[in-house]
Amino acid sequence: MELNTIYELIREDLAKVNNRIRSISKVDFPWLSEQLSHVVRNGGKGIRPALTLLAGKFYNYHLEYLLSMAVAVELMHTATLVHDDTIDKSLVRRGKPTIYKIWGEEPSVLLGDYLFAKAGEFVSDTHCPRVIKLFSQTLATISSGELNQLFGAFKLEQTRQHYFQRISSKTASLFSLATESGAILSEAPEKSVKALKDYGYNLGIAFQIVDDILDFTGTEERLGKPVGSDLAQGTLTLPAILLLEHYPEDNPVKRLFETKDKQKNIEPAIELIRNSSIVQECYRIASEYRTKACHNLDLLPENASSQALTELADYIINRK
Amino acid sequence: MELNTIYELIREDLAKVNNRIRSISKVDFPWLSEQLSHVVRNGGKGIRPALTLLAGKFYNYHLEYLLSMAVAVELMHTATLVHDDTIDKSLVRRGKPTIYKIWGEEPSVLLGDYLFAKAGEFVSDTHCPRVIKLFSQTLATISSGELNQLFGAFKLEQTRQHYFQRISSKTASLFSLATESGAILSEAPEKSVKALKDYGYNLGIAFQIVDDILDFTGTEERLGKPVGSDLAQGTLTLPAILLLEHYPEDNPVKRLFETKDKQKNIEPAIELIRNSSIVQECYRIASEYRTKACHNLDLLPENASSQALTELADYIINRK
Repeated sequence: MELNTIYELIREDLAKVNNRIRSISKVDFPWLSEQLSHVVRNGGKGIRPALTLLAGKFYNYHLEYLLSMAVAVELMHTATLVHDDTIDKSLVRRGKPTIYKIWGEEPSVLLGDYLFAKAGEFVSDTHCPRVIKLFSQTLATISSGELNQLFGAFKLEQTRQHYFQRISSKTASLFSLATESGAILSEAPEKSVKALKDYGYNLGIAFQIVDDILDFTGTEERLGKPVGSDLAQGTLTLPAILLLEHYPEDNPVKRLFETKDKQKNIEPAIELIRNSSIVQECYRIASEYRTKACHNLDLLPENASSQALTELADYIINRK
Repeated sequence: MELNTIYELIREDLAKVNNRIRSISKVDFPWLSEQLSHVVRNGGKGIRPALTLLAGKFYNYHLEYLLSMAVAVELMHTATLVHDDTIDKSLVRRGKPTIYKIWGEEPSVLLGDYLFAKAGEFVSDTHCPRVIKLFSQTLATISSGELNQLFGAFKLEQTRQHYFQRISSKTASLFSLATESGAILSEAPEKSVKALKDYGYNLGIAFQIVDDILDFTGTEERLGKPVGSDLAQGTLTLPAILLLEHYPEDNPVKRLFETKDKQKNIEPAIELIRNSSIVQECYRIASEYRTKACHNLDLLPENASSQALTELADYIINRK
């Protein structure tokens, strides 16, 4: 199923979210305006704002608050990407040059800060201290998770447990913020807040595992960035961890980490992962999280939104 | 007058602020904990949190809210310093090695983000949407001001007007956030909120001008960083702008910007500023802002706090 079809229920409101996001580039400083236009134009799939809006559809759909929150969630996501690209010195994202590539490191740091600030402004428009606090806590979780990833880089001791901790911090936390805040802002009862939060969390884990699979199985053209980029940064994702588990003695990941010779070892690692059962195994694990996410939805009233959230979970597993 | 004496009225509460700031380093990740200990130990003069507390002393002194705000203001300040040092590649701050120097650029970016997040958590504890929004707006102002400074670097077209715009964004905005939020949280009438906001703003401008004077007249030991560091980064502060106004034809600042030969030109620029009327002229301008700040205080009830704020304004002009 196409994302457009899944988003049908919130199509108009999602368009409003995107308009508000684009409007932040209307500022007086020409450099800032140009940079902001670049990042907000460079749009993603809008999964996080869609989650907030859909999560808000079970009880009182307070449109203005939900719009502000959806914008805040997407801007926080954008800000973390800008800083990630700076830290990883990534040149391409979504098939376009990064802020880091065009303007360099210093402006990227400040632009990320500016985006965090704008996200903060939007979240304050929800007038809801509980989601405002959640928002800040999520940013703390994400940045401490990224720090953890950084200090673990090029260490072979990165285990499955570390991996799940890391993707929980860096991805699932924001997905669950998106759904939990939507639930809170629509005055959902606490049981439903918890169910939507857990749905977001499990969906986020499934999403990241699939992302990490695609980093090995995709093409540079479809990924919009080089294949195997996590491994090149010294980060072990689930496929690479399974490779180490399957071939503990001698393998290209181990050689890469020991010699840091990327040219010789990245390609063989990608090949080995592609031509083994590892990819299937990773998909099986991602599917387990998709199933958990859908079980969380069973605790909610059945409506068009729960239908869309189920479809979104399927989309996330099947996306290429 | 010593800062300790000026702070007498809020001594105990300022100690609580410092304890809360120090407590954020108690986290599970050992690296993060070590970095946080380094920045929060590396304490400043606490002017910004003191401003929030003193501004809260005119009406209803809601201690818990004011403490949260004071912590948030200081953490936001710390976060911007961590990112500034990363951007400027500064090795020393307050006489100690920077996060950038010890851990490098990537952790510095993420640690700054983490500190913004913690600041956001504390500000959300004020439960006051108005100050929460002000807080985010201030961060947007600061980061866009820094971006402006970055893109203006090594350009001789930096005028007085640009200078005041810049220090308004990067320093006065946070000073005025500190006082305005203290006023709002103590339920001050709007006139008093405005007076305290303006006091903070004018004090911030005076503070930054004196900082920029000291950057030329101080010693590396007392400054805790190299003398003339702004000029070395290509930033024209008031003394350097006056130098260009006084000696428009040939001067070491012009030569520095044209050749970027720091070794040959920084020292003569510092000498020229020190041995001219420029320093006195800058102090005169700073004093005008101090006077404006004190006029703002005239609009408030006279009490021990207005006394302390007057003394603080004097301290800021006279500090070495």
